[in-house]
Amino acid sequence: MREMSSLVSTPGMLSFALGLPATELLPLAACRAAAAQTLATDHQALQYQVRPEPLKRHLRELLASRGVNCREDQIYLTTGAQQAIHLLVNLLLNKGGQVLIEEVTYEGLHNAILPWRPQVLVIPTDPGTGMNVDAVEAQLVQGARPAFIYTVTDGQNPLGISLSQAARNRLVELARRFHIPIIEDDVFGFLNYDGPALSPMRALDEEWVFYIGSFSKILSPALRVGWIVAPDAFGPALSFLKHASDLDVTTLAQLTVSSYLDTGELPAHLAILRREYGIRRDTMLRALESHFPPEAQWKKPSSGMFIWVELPREINTVELLRMAVETERVAFMPGAFFGVDGSGGARNGMRLNFTHCAPEQIQDGALRLANVLKELIEAFAL
Amino acid sequence: MREMSSLVSTPGMLSFALGLPATELLPLAACRAAAAQTLATDHQALQYQVRPEPLKRHLRELLASRGVNCREDQIYLTTGAQQAIHLLVNLLLNKGGQVLIEEVTYEGLHNAILPWRPQVLVIPTDPGTGMNVDAVEAQLVQGARPAFIYTVTDGQNPLGISLSQAARNRLVELARRFHIPIIEDDVFGFLNYDGPALSPMRALDEEWVFYIGSFSKILSPALRVGWIVAPDAFGPALSFLKHASDLDVTTLAQLTVSSYLDTGELPAHLAILRREYGIRRDTMLRALESHFPPEAQWKKPSSGMFIWVELPREINTVELLRMAVETERVAFMPGAFFGVDGSGGARNGMRLNFTHCAPEQIQDGALRLANVLKELIEAFAL
Repeated sequence: MREMSSLVSTPGMLSFALGLPATELLPLAACRAAAAQTLATDHQALQYQVRPEPLKRHLRELLASRGVNCREDQIYLTTGAQQAIHLLVNLLLNKGGQVLIEEVTYEGLHNAILPWRPQVLVIPTDPGTGMNVDAVEAQLVQGARPAFIYTVTDGQNPLGISLSQAARNRLVELARRFHIPIIEDDVFGFLNYDGPALSPMRALDEEWVFYIGSFSKILSPALRVGWIVAPDAFGPALSFLKHASDLDVTTLAQLTVSSYLDTGELPAHLAILRREYGIRRDTMLRALESHFPPEAQWKKPSSGMFIWVELPREINTVELLRMAVETERVAFMPGAFFGVDGSGGARNGMRLNFTHCAPEQIQDGALRLANVLKELIEAFAL
Repeated sequence: MREMSSLVSTPGMLSFALGLPATELLPLAACRAAAAQTLATDHQALQYQVRPEPLKRHLRELLASRGVNCREDQIYLTTGAQQAIHLLVNLLLNKGGQVLIEEVTYEGLHNAILPWRPQVLVIPTDPGTGMNVDAVEAQLVQGARPAFIYTVTDGQNPLGISLSQAARNRLVELARRFHIPIIEDDVFGFLNYDGPALSPMRALDEEWVFYIGSFSKILSPALRVGWIVAPDAFGPALSFLKHASDLDVTTLAQLTVSSYLDTGELPAHLAILRREYGIRRDTMLRALESHFPPEAQWKKPSSGMFIWVELPREINTVELLRMAVETERVAFMPGAFFGVDGSGGARNGMRLNFTHCAPEQIQDGALRLANVLKELIEAFAL
């Protein structure tokens, strides 16, 4: 893990590794104006205990546009989606308890559950359709009682998959039937490229679904403002945990986001992101088609930031990364980074981010990656 | 606890309850300029993964002025001191483990340890000299092996006490002898009013002392930037926990603080805080002397934000608070808020903040409090 992190952070690299937004699309001037507005006249902006109501009002509207209807007092602000995950893990999981997660999933979840040493119930994920809901049901019917089911419903990290409506419906039914909370991570839900996205599971259920989102992917990661929409029964405990963790989300960031949203510029900004990221996704798909060998397979993601490429089973993509960094100075995230320990299911996968690099870099980088990949495949005489 | 919180947050109150800085002394214009400078030209300011080195360089210098000499790679940024405490509790404590804390101490520590259901070893605190180090030694000699010892070395919250040099020396010796880490909370260490303060325990030892500080009390709570200086052996585990908790401290806040420190204005700002808060402390002491009945006792704090008043044992200050809010619309923090559950030792104490209200409000509020107090003492026929 340490080797992977060090490889992908080698300076001077053309990198598809991290889940970064396009730096040049970050709304710098608008955020500067929003921060200045926030700090213009009101000393309270630098004090403890600023009221979060204005931001929550904006959030309620934003979430309604995603099909999530909630009250403001069901919204809990967090330091990005990572803290949302961390708080919910601490809320729901006990030492040695069970959790139900996909065989490859967001590494930040692995980090959050690790100190609890849970029994991980691994659910297969199909690179085309996502979490295997039959397997979830089978586990629950056989008596598994995980503390939660974790899903990234749209643009799953790292696979790029969005669950079908039928899968969403069934997962919610299972949560209700077996009384198992779902942690629904929707950080990519606003980044959809092929017309309207499906609504998240929180639109179907407000008793068992914890809904997580963040401004990191749609406005700026540096603001570290995310949220949880939580079922009413868990509200007081969640408030306590957040307060015990760090009192509050950075007030300056809350107020800056709220002031930015006051301008009404977010919808237009989101439209820009969808258009530009859509172009980059398509550029990467065409480049893979042109340059990658036939042994490599991938699907077109309709949301999010990533294309997942599967290689022949013989190929360990950590080895491929090492070669790519050394010979072509290009990086990606190897599948092992996202695998449940010991499952080994992701060793031959690579996650390619398509949002951070400009289209010409994407074409260039894909070509360079293809060169390394062909070399490795020849070496294996596949 | 809920009643206390609701009482002290009644609107329209003259309040000595919370540990707030003076709103009118918060450097609004300077922070606005620093935020603007941060967001002037560099899109990276809104991206993930900004480098924290400039802020850590400033911190190293600031801490050296407090007698704490450390390397930049020993500094870990946190979302205020509360997250620092929370991270260290999670780092050091196991479920059901022991912790060693004073009979009255910062309530944020109680919140952080609660989920671990620890065995709390309660150490008596003398209102004049602070943590009873003999009792600490006795516990350790008798075989107690707490996960940590928590102290606020200067301007203890809620008692206002600063430990003597001899007590600091002995605590460090005990930590070394018994291999027990000290969590030293120094959020008030820069707010000293009677000449140079003693150095914190981290100046004596870098192997067993975790040193916590924050910009919340000396610059702005809304920025939520604090720090830990950690012993080398714990660095990797602490980094992992912080990353798993929320990835990073709000980048905009880090950069704003760093940009503010670039101006070199902090020492002059600290001098203003020391002068103004010193005036407010003395104003409150004089008002207590003039108006409070002889049954009330207090000491002059040399650091921090609080004066602790002890009343006759018969008086429960939650009851006093209820009367004060209802009849005089003035609030304070009752001692029970800071007591270890069941110790009951703080029921007759009241914590008065002297930094938030202007001197004339302090005089007025102390008089109003004194009226309620006299009434209650008469009712008890003491």
